[in-house]
Amino acid sequence: MKVLGVEDGSFIPRVSRKCLLAGVLMDDLRIENVFIRVITVDGMDVTEKVLDIIKECKDVDIILSGGITFAGFNVLNPFKIYEETNVPVIIISRKRPNNKAVYRALVRHFEDWRIRWSIINRLGEPVPVLNWRDGVTLYIELVGIGLENALEIVDSLTLWGKRPEPLRVASLIAKGLSRIMEVKNASSHIA
Amino acid sequence: MKVLGVEDGSFIPRVSRKCLLAGVLMDDLRIENVFIRVITVDGMDVTEKVLDIIKECKDVDIILSGGITFAGFNVLNPFKIYEETNVPVIIISRKRPNNKAVYRALVRHFEDWRIRWSIINRLGEPVPVLNWRDGVTLYIELVGIGLENALEIVDSLTLWGKRPEPLRVASLIAKGLSRIMEVKNASSHIA
Repeated sequence: MKVLGVEDGSFIPRVSRKCLLAGVLMDDLRIENVFIRVITVDGMDVTEKVLDIIKECKDVDIILSGGITFAGFNVLNPFKIYEETNVPVIIISRKRPNNKAVYRALVRHFEDWRIRWSIINRLGEPVPVLNWRDGVTLYIELVGIGLENALEIVDSLTLWGKRPEPLRVASLIAKGLSRIMEVKNASSHIA
Repeated sequence: MKVLGVEDGSFIPRVSRKCLLAGVLMDDLRIENVFIRVITVDGMDVTEKVLDIIKECKDVDIILSGGITFAGFNVLNPFKIYEETNVPVIIISRKRPNNKAVYRALVRHFEDWRIRWSIINRLGEPVPVLNWRDGVTLYIELVGIGLENALEIVDSLTLWGKRPEPLRVASLIAKGLSRIMEVKNASSHIA
């Protein structure tokens, strides 16, 4: 099974306008390819960048996303991804998403808050998976796949630590890359 | 065992002045961390950047390097790495290194060719490991470790394909990153 994990890097609030997105394509536990994209902090381009990675991959069975918002409030639209590619999306968070706080922040800071909120609202409340590993709770949101299937996939890919490998490795890459970008203060140059 | 694999990305000859170096730290087959550095095409800074990564890792038992020259003729000095850190270096090439051609190129294009050549010359002729996987020959050069030990390590880390995982993954990351850098034509900005 080919699973694409996507995670964002870090950025400096109020300074960076861009942030990195890493995609790791795994065939079961084998890393097949690595994709890097630049996304806009608080922009609305993460969905288009993930679609672009899927196109480059050609062959993907499942998307594993490390959250629904990237680079601040850049909201991933998993419904659009599923509609356009027929690839189901599993969204995994380690913290309980606080949708009320997100709603308030969106209304306060974004003219297009209705578009962003409608995606989060349509997903509904995340499903808590209690006692995932070492007593840790995972929060899962799904598009195009049932909970039982999704948990089986996530379980089979969780080898070390608490997160499935495609997400763990994508996060290491995005963070490793962000460190050097911040050091070089190049975040505004890679636009 | 903690193994650091280092590989460079691609660059556009005569255009890019900088190139990316990816370091992947693995604890046996678990990816522990990812490091990115910028190196200079035809410069002499790769040794210092690898030393810098080793310092950040804190705990490394072996370096696996995907060659002796990076980003053109940026020569890695494995003797210096071993002297300063006591970490042995295994250099693996899939093509037979053509030392005569390298010598001619160095003499023709580099004022400091004696420094670069002395490292390559001190390493001597690479040891061919015949019939490594699927009839493929690997070429190995070693500093601070014997051939038998080195082959055992390389063998235990070669899971898929013909190269040990730390090199295979470091290469995927460096290449994935180079693609987007070239697209964005940012190679001159990340200096």
